[in-house]
Formats: sequence, C-alpha cells, structure tokens
Amino acid sequence: MSEQQDLEPMRHSLAHIMATAVTTLWPEAKLGVGPVVENGFYYDIDIPGVTISEDDFKKIEEEMRKVVNRNEPFEKSMKPIDDALVWARDAGQPYKEELLNDLKREGTTLAKELDGAMMGLPAGIGGAAPAHVGVGEVSFYTNGSFTDLCRGPHVESTGKVGAFKLMRVAGAYWRGNEKNPQMQRLYGVAFATKEELNAHLQMLEEAKKRDHRKLGKELDLFVFSDMVGSGLPMFTPRGTVLREELAAFSNQLRKDRGFQSVWTPHMTKKDLYEASGHWAKFGDELFLVTSQETSDQLVLKPMNCPHHTRIFESQPRSYRDMPVRYIETTTDYRDEKSGELGGLSRVRALTQDDSHVFCRPDQIEAEIDGLLSAAQELYATVDMKLRVRLSYRDDSDAYLGDVALWESAQGQLKEAVLKNGLEYFEQDGEAAFYGPKIDFMATDAIGREHQVATVQLDFVQPERFGLEYTSVEGSMERPVMIHCALLGSIERFLSVYIEHTGGNFPIWLAPEQVRLITVNQEEVTVKKAAEIADIAYKHGLRVYVDNDNESVGKKIRSSAKAKVPYTVVIGEREVKDGVISPRLRADIAVMDAQSELHFEQFVQTVVNEAKSRVLKSSL
Amino acid sequence: MSEQQDLEPMRHSLAHIMATAVTTLWPEAKLGVGPVVENGFYYDIDIPGVTISEDDFKKIEEEMRKVVNRNEPFEKSMKPIDDALVWARDAGQPYKEELLNDLKREGTTLAKELDGAMMGLPAGIGGAAPAHVGVGEVSFYTNGSFTDLCRGPHVESTGKVGAFKLMRVAGAYWRGNEKNPQMQRLYGVAFATKEELNAHLQMLEEAKKRDHRKLGKELDLFVFSDMVGSGLPMFTPRGTVLREELAAFSNQLRKDRGFQSVWTPHMTKKDLYEASGHWAKFGDELFLVTSQETSDQLVLKPMNCPHHTRIFESQPRSYRDMPVRYIETTTDYRDEKSGELGGLSRVRALTQDDSHVFCRPDQIEAEIDGLLSAAQELYATVDMKLRVRLSYRDDSDAYLGDVALWESAQGQLKEAVLKNGLEYFEQDGEAAFYGPKIDFMATDAIGREHQVATVQLDFVQPERFGLEYTSVEGSMERPVMIHCALLGSIERFLSVYIEHTGGNFPIWLAPEQVRLITVNQEEVTVKKAAEIADIAYKHGLRVYVDNDNESVGKKIRSSAKAKVPYTVVIGEREVKDGVISPRLRADIAVMDAQSELHFEQFVQTVVNEAKSRVLKSSL
Repeated sequence: MSEQQDLEPMRHSLAHIMATAVTTLWPEAKLGVGPVVENGFYYDIDIPGVTISEDDFKKIEEEMRKVVNRNEPFEKSMKPIDDALVWARDAGQPYKEELLNDLKREGTTLAKELDGAMMGLPAGIGGAAPAHVGVGEVSFYTNGSFTDLCRGPHVESTGKVGAFKLMRVAGAYWRGNEKNPQMQRLYGVAFATKEELNAHLQMLEEAKKRDHRKLGKELDLFVFSDMVGSGLPMFTPRGTVLREELAAFSNQLRKDRGFQSVWTPHMTKKDLYEASGHWAKFGDELFLVTSQETSDQLVLKPMNCPHHTRIFESQPRSYRDMPVRYIETTTDYRDEKSGELGGLSRVRALTQDDSHVFCRPDQIEAEIDGLLSAAQELYATVDMKLRVRLSYRDDSDAYLGDVALWESAQGQLKEAVLKNGLEYFEQDGEAAFYGPKIDFMATDAIGREHQVATVQLDFVQPERFGLEYTSVEGSMERPVMIHCALLGSIERFLSVYIEHTGGNFPIWLAPEQVRLITVNQEEVTVKKAAEIADIAYKHGLRVYVDNDNESVGKKIRSSAKAKVPYTVVIGEREVKDGVISPRLRADIAVMDAQSELHFEQFVQTVVNEAKSRVLKSSL
Repeated sequence: MSEQQDLEPMRHSLAHIMATAVTTLWPEAKLGVGPVVENGFYYDIDIPGVTISEDDFKKIEEEMRKVVNRNEPFEKSMKPIDDALVWARDAGQPYKEELLNDLKREGTTLAKELDGAMMGLPAGIGGAAPAHVGVGEVSFYTNGSFTDLCRGPHVESTGKVGAFKLMRVAGAYWRGNEKNPQMQRLYGVAFATKEELNAHLQMLEEAKKRDHRKLGKELDLFVFSDMVGSGLPMFTPRGTVLREELAAFSNQLRKDRGFQSVWTPHMTKKDLYEASGHWAKFGDELFLVTSQETSDQLVLKPMNCPHHTRIFESQPRSYRDMPVRYIETTTDYRDEKSGELGGLSRVRALTQDDSHVFCRPDQIEAEIDGLLSAAQELYATVDMKLRVRLSYRDDSDAYLGDVALWESAQGQLKEAVLKNGLEYFEQDGEAAFYGPKIDFMATDAIGREHQVATVQLDFVQPERFGLEYTSVEGSMERPVMIHCALLGSIERFLSVYIEHTGGNFPIWLAPEQVRLITVNQEEVTVKKAAEIADIAYKHGLRVYVDNDNESVGKKIRSSAKAKVPYTVVIGEREVKDGVISPRLRADIAVMDAQSELHFEQFVQTVVNEAKSRVLKSSL
C-alpha cells in the first residue's frame, strides 16, 4: 500500500500528461476528472463528434511521450473561484465550470461526492479530487501550455513519470449519473520502471488465461442460470469437490484445535439483529423474508455470530468450560447490487468457513495463536504467501469497549503474530469499532495480493447479548468473542484460487485425480480398468474410466485438457501383469521420467499424496 | 391402515357409549360431534356449569361399562329432516339442531365442512360426519334409551367394543371456530383386546419418557431462540454430530452407487418455479425474499429438483453419460403456519438428504434397485423395520405423462422392490401427478410406524424444463427424473430417531463416544487421561476427559446421564500399565462382564465398531 502511495503523484501526473496529449490532438476536447486508480490512472474526456478507439492509443502515447521528453515542470498556482470560473469559460471547459460552480456553492462537501462518483476506485487509494479548496481559492497545476484545476500533488516535472501504457477506453457517465452526458474514460497503467510495467502487463496476460470464469466453464466447475439469478452460482460435481475438500481441510485444522461443529438456519427473525445491533447498521443490506402464513418479520442471515451466541447462551458456562469454540461452514446472503455476472468474486450467496471462540480475556493470545497457526498451515498447503495486517484502534472515540481491554488484546494479537513468525505490518485506525483484528493477505502465483480472511476480536456482541460465564471466584464475567474465517468466503477464495493454480489443482483437491484410458474396448481391457477404478474408489480416490471408442491420443489430450493429475493407459501389458506407467500432469512431476509400478502400489501412493496434500508427486 | 379401518365402527360405537354415559350422569349435557380419531375416539360435549376433569373419568368409565354389559343393540332409523329437528328441540340438543338446520339448508356440502372442522383427524381415517343424508332424510342410531344423529356404521351391539380407556379432556371450540362456544372434548382410546390396549398405553408411557424435545434438552442436542423464531432449530455441537454423521452415511451409501455431490444456493428468482410449475401449485407456501438493492423477485427454495435440472442442462448429455446422479444435503424452507414449539417434527428449515437421477427410461429399474438397497442398508443400520408402499396411478385423468411409460415404470418399481426382498403393499391412486413412487415406512422401537422418505419418478419436470440427451441413434430424447431422500428431512428423522433410541445412540453416532474419568487431579493421572484422549481423537473418536474435582461415583453417574457408550476410569493402575476396564452403556453390552484391555487396543476396537456401525459392542 505504501509503495502504491509513492506511485500516486506519478500516476496522477500522467493523467495530466494524457490530457495534454489529448487536447493537443483534439483541441475541442472537454475534460472531466482524472484520478489515480489501482496500477494507473484515467481521465474522463468528451470530444464532440469523436470516439476514441484503441487504434488511437499509439498516437496519444506518442504525443504523451513528447510531453515527457520536454520535461516541463508542474507549477502550482492559486486563483479565487470567480477567476477560476472565468478561466473555465475562456478555455471552453464546461465540466470544469460545473465543478467550480458546485465548489463555490457547496464548498468541501463536493469533494466527497466526487470521490464517490469515481467508480472503480479501490478503498485505500486516494482519489484525486479536482481542486484544493483554500479560503475561497482553488489550486491549478500547469505544465507547458496545459493548465488544469487540480489539488495535486504532482511529480516535479513531466520527465519524471516512469513507464506507462494506455490500456482501454470505455463509456462513463459524467459524475456516475446516467442522466448526465456520456464521456469516454481513457485508462492507463504506470509503474516506476519499464521492467515493472512489463511484469504487470505479463501478469495481466496470464490473468486473462487463468480467468476463473473461463476456467470455471472449461473445467465444468460451476454454472449460472438466468432462472436462478445473478450472483447465485451452482456448483457441478467437480466444483463441489473443491468446495467440500477446502472446507473440510479448513474445518479439520480448527477441529484439531478444539473447535466443534454447530448448525444454524439461514433465516432468523429480525429481532436477532436488532439485539446484536446489525439491524440498525446494516439493515438495508439484508434480504428481507416474508412469511405468507405468519406475520413474522424474517431476514436471511448475512453473518453467523448472532446465531452462535444463542447456542453459547443456551447453557450456563463456567471458567472451566472456556474457551467454547464453534465452527460452521454455512451460506450467508448479502444483497449485493448485482452479482458479478458469471463469476465468483462477488456473489449474493457466500459460504463462509466461519468460527467463533467465546473466551476469557486472558485466553485471547492462545486462541489467536491457534488460529494463526491454522491459517499458516492452510496457506502453505495451497501454496500462497501469507502476510497479515494488525489493525489497531486510534485515539478517536470511534471504538466501543474498555481501553485497557483493547490494549491488552492488541498486545496479545501481536504476540501471537510474532510467535507464528508471520510477516506483518501494523496500522492504527483500521480496527473494527467492536475490536482489533488481523487481516490476512495472500499472494497468488502471478503476484497479485488478495485480502482473504480476517480474525476479529469482538467486545461488543458479548455485551449486547449479555453473555457471561462464572469466574473461579463465582462472579459473572463477560467473555470475549473471536470471529475467524480462514478461507473467508469459499466462493471468493475459489475465484482467487482457480486463477492461482490456473486450474491445475493439487492432487488432494483435483476433482478427478486419476483417469484410466483403455486402448480398446475389449472385455479384458474394460474389466481391468473397472477393477483398478474400483480399488482406487474404495481407497477414496476420485477416478474415472474413459473407454470411449476413440484413439488413445485423443483420450490423452482430453485428460490433459481436464487437467487430471494422473492419466493411466490400460493396454495389453497392464491387463497381463498389472504394471502401469502413469502420466503425470507437468506441474506435479518432479522429473519427466515415467515410472513403472504395480497399480496397487500406484493407488497407495496417490492416496498418501492426497492425504498429505503434497504439491509435487513422488512418482 | 386396513386394520385401523376394522376398528373404526367399534371406536365410533364407543363415542356413542361415552355419550350415553355422560348424558346419564349429566342429563343436561348438550352434544356436538363424536368422530373416530387415530387409536380412538372423542365427543365434544357442553354441560352447563360443569367442567369435566380427569377425576370424573373413573365414574364415566364405570357408567360406560354398564352400557357395555347391557349389550344393547345399535339400531338404525331414518327420519325426515324436519322430524329430526323436532327431535333435537325436544331432546334439548341445540348443537344437533344447528347441524340439522345447516344440513337442511346446504345438503351435502356441510359434511365436508364438518370433516375439516374435526381437527386432529389424521388423513386416511374416515371422520364420522354426524348424519347420513338420504333424500331429505337423515339417519339415527339408538342403543337403549340413547339416540344420536349419526351416519354410522356401528358394531352390532354395545357389548362388542373391545377394550377402552378415557385419556384426556380438553377445550375445543364448537366447529373449530373461536367465535363459537367452547365445549369439552373428551378423548378415549380403544383396541380389540385388553392386551392391545395395554401395549398401547405402555407405548404412550415410553414415548413420554423418550419425547425428543425432552431428550433434546437433557442431552444438549438442539436449542430454539425467540429471537430466531419458531420452527428454526439450532444444533449444538452434540446435535450437529448426529446431523453430520447421518447425512454422511446416507450420502456415502449413494456415492457408492455413483452419485456425485452438487451445491446450489438456498434462494432463486421465482422464474425457476414458474418454469417448473411449482409456483402455480405451491406459490403461497413459499417464503418470499425481497431484495432491497434490486427488483429481483426471489424465494427460498422449498425443494432442490429445479436447481438440479439447471446443472444437468448446463452440458450436452449423451446416452453414454446417463444416468447422471446428483446428491445434495441442503436446507429447504417451507412456510409452515407455525413450527411445532421446541420440537423437530415440524420445522420451517428442513435439511434434506436429497438426490436426483436423470436416466433413460430403460434404466429406471436398476436405479430404483440401487436406491432401495441403499435404503435397506440405512434402516437396518439404524435398527428400524422398513416396509414400502408402491403408489401407482389409477384410471382417472389426474396424471401427466405417457400411459405406456407409466406402466413400464410401475413394473420396474415393483421388480426392484421384489429384488430387494422388501415388505411392501400396493395402492392405486396414491401416485404423484408427475409419476409413481415408493413410500418408505419405518417402525420404531416402541412400535410406531413413521413415513420417513420417498423415491419418486418424475416424467413432468424433464418435460417442462425441456431436458434431453442424445440417444445412440442420434435423436434427442427426454430423460426421466428420480427424486430420492433416504432420511427425508434430517430434522424430522431425528425427531423419530431420538425417540427410537431414547437417546442411547449407537457407537458410530454417539456425540460423545468415550468419556475418560480421572480418579484424582494428580498430574500423572490428568496426563495419562490427556494422552489416551489424544490418541483416541487422532483415531477419529469423539472423546472427553472429566477431571473435575468430584467423586468418581458422581462422575460415572454424569457420564451415564449423558448416555456415553464407553466410560473409562483412569486411576493408579491405568496410569501404571495402561490397562483399562471400560464400562459399557447397558444397551451396547452383550454381557455385563467388564473386560480388561490395553487402552490402545480399546481405542482400536471402538474405532472399528464405529466404522462398521455396530449396535452392540464386542467388548
């Protein structure tokens, strides 16, 4: 993030340089806003009668390079708003004029609206609002003959902008409102060096190939239906294997640390969220459920903690019972504006591998320690680099709960992170209002970092629900809750993980672990394949037989396309003495030599590899 | 059922005998209706100023016995309605008068209303409507000095009524309408012999002890919360073990037969049910979901078949791919008027171990065969006697689909039932409109028979959704769907099964399989218990250590109360040489001799017993 922030002045300067180029090429161009976004920048532009296409990118980039080569300094100046309005009118810039008029009328509230209107702007990346508002004055930046209303900051001069590339152009309504004129949003990416830019472009190429929506279709993992609705994926047998194996592993890691499964319905009276406080805060993000038979006011659960408090509360608890640890893999429903069509990144039905600890304040460190070691084991197994953010409170009054408890808890969180040797950074003011938290960030195979899950302390729900346990002295004490999902939402995790592996799932996760290919359709061959398949199935493997009436070459290609880790051809020799030569998918093979072994030994080896969740085969 | 029907005239005669007794004791008693119900009969009675209590039962029963001993014949007579009205007025029977007036005005439609008003009347048991309507005439039955408006039939005389007992009295509004006067509903049970009556009474006593709501609380299996709502149970860790183990077993039985897990969301646009036809038929039984962010019209799924058709349809299928078999244990939501408070018999969130086969018409028998053998294995394992009803179409036009297909399918269903050696009976007119079915009936340990699940053929949904596969000749053909749940709703199954076992769950299902009790809190003892517990856990057992500072006797009693199959006391000898003497819960012990064995051998034995799902221990 801090690296990203260093790049911001450079990327924002490139927005100005692009605007310089565009207004040189099309002097009639009207400019909207031009903020920084992830990896780059854009500018909203309106050229009467002209539609910019990708064919124009070369021309614009060349013009931009001229501006860079001139190394013009960025010079800041201040103008009273009324003078600025004259400037906008003289320059023929009606959008700037509108912004200035609003600024004049409404002052700083405008900045906020504009931030909101800059769609595609990820949280944590400062949007460049168009003007710094001084005392009745606004700021301008000038490079060469180009001047723009702008709050800055910029690099020193146009020569200091690193490597850039225009990426795409798309329609965008002025200020995000579909009643306003449509402008053209011109996007570019920019990095400090040419190498970094190239790496980014290569990553994008690779990401395109790995797009989980594309692979989801090719590998038959999940489907959508217009009749069911957007954001509501259905998982095929192959996709369901991924869901179930991942959830089982995530659960096992916590069961080994004392968690116990519970089950709660997907629906509740809204009373539960009125009690928890979620109704007041998130009520308009919930799906409302109408009973046609009763007058109950129901909602779909968007999270599971309030339900779990009901189970905790159903028995008296003593200090000896603590911690009480519940785990539930269950589907929550959140009323997203629109599910991302055909993908798992943003869904309305999200299945969480959710858990809740109810513990004494002195048990926080040990509990966090257990969860962090589980997270480390999980992310090491799926081969993703993990780092964490320790999110603390700041000095504001935005936080609920006793300050001493916060301080002790933050200390315990950090101790647990240190004990687990995790790469981490700390950030004040990033805590939830109900407690400090640890955010997990995992890096995928093409270098993208994703926030995957969190561990959160919660001092507020135990209070709101009046949860308690009897202390050793006999007094009634308030437990602390620890929320944790290791995968986060399984759907979102899969959207990352499918792209991370490119669909080459490790042996333990592969929906089809072994494919047996018959060289012909003779009875002995088919029988042998069935015999091996049966033994493999009984040992818990996912195995399929392909005895279609096709050539062996075609069948092998089909198995490779399905990214099956082990493909075994069953021919005369295999029938005769049971010795096979498994073909390994490239990424699991240590060497490309093919081994020969008896099929029973092969089955046992694959079973062991799946059980120990290896990334490479020992065959 | 047919046995039940033989008892009906006897039970209805007892309603008259009870009315005879009541009007003898309280001549001012006004009579309502007196139908047959499951296992017995009742009569609605209104005695001005008198409240009948259980203390009166002896007196009434004695009076009834006098009527029985007099062996008065039941004599039928007919009266024109106007004469009947005179009789009712003369006899001071205003409720009968009201019925007669309605009969006169509305004819036969009244009978229907009255059947509906007889609450508590199970389907399939004929309600005794108060009068047979001839051509302007109604029928009466007289025994001794007592005459009642009645359609019969009755036994020959009051002496031929078998064994009976009054059970309870409860308030009931006249004709089920709370605006009407409240009467007293006096219930009795009756059987052909004293032995059968006693067996029934004993069963009721036993059922009371085994009430799953009571055991659910005592054994900490599930909880309800007012904040969450009625009919929405939450399962504690112990109850969740039962759910998960049962579902896993039910799934495994089908996975062994080629089923593959799929996953679908709990919500859909209502378009899906408009396409399937469910919306028109069951639309008002669904929970409606309102999106606050979009205009989508959504509902919670009350069944899973339409979702599964979407997955089937997402790929082209050929005859070689068939059957395609999906299984999903998932929660459906049905808008019951009110969940039965505190119980699992009727819930609004019901989790089904649901599966769907898409097959060619010639594959029906083999598929049904597989499902029946799975059902047999399941019900043998849970130790319940299974019989099935083959539900066929009749000659009416209430059925959709080709008649030849129906006939072939019904034949294949029966073949599969015969092949599996299942006890069965056949019933015409009991099929669903979309296909014939097999209903499973399981008998519990106290002799009650419960309908637990069904296998249903479906010719209609494949048609409505336009499902197809390519035949060997290349033509597009319509598959048949087979719906099946082995447990049915897991919640309802548990309500039966908890009472069936009385909470003495077999080793493989027991939420806690082994409890280790320390004789003291010395470090060596606690350490040994922890060591054994750790080994048992690693072998997959559910094991708890009780090292509370209590007497061994008290700890053993606590383990017995929790109905733990194996309780092991860890004392000096156990610490020294690792030899233990497990105490067995009575129902799993073959003999009451305690065996001695090394704890590692013990763990291995229990693991094997759990794996093979035995009912009795080999220790």
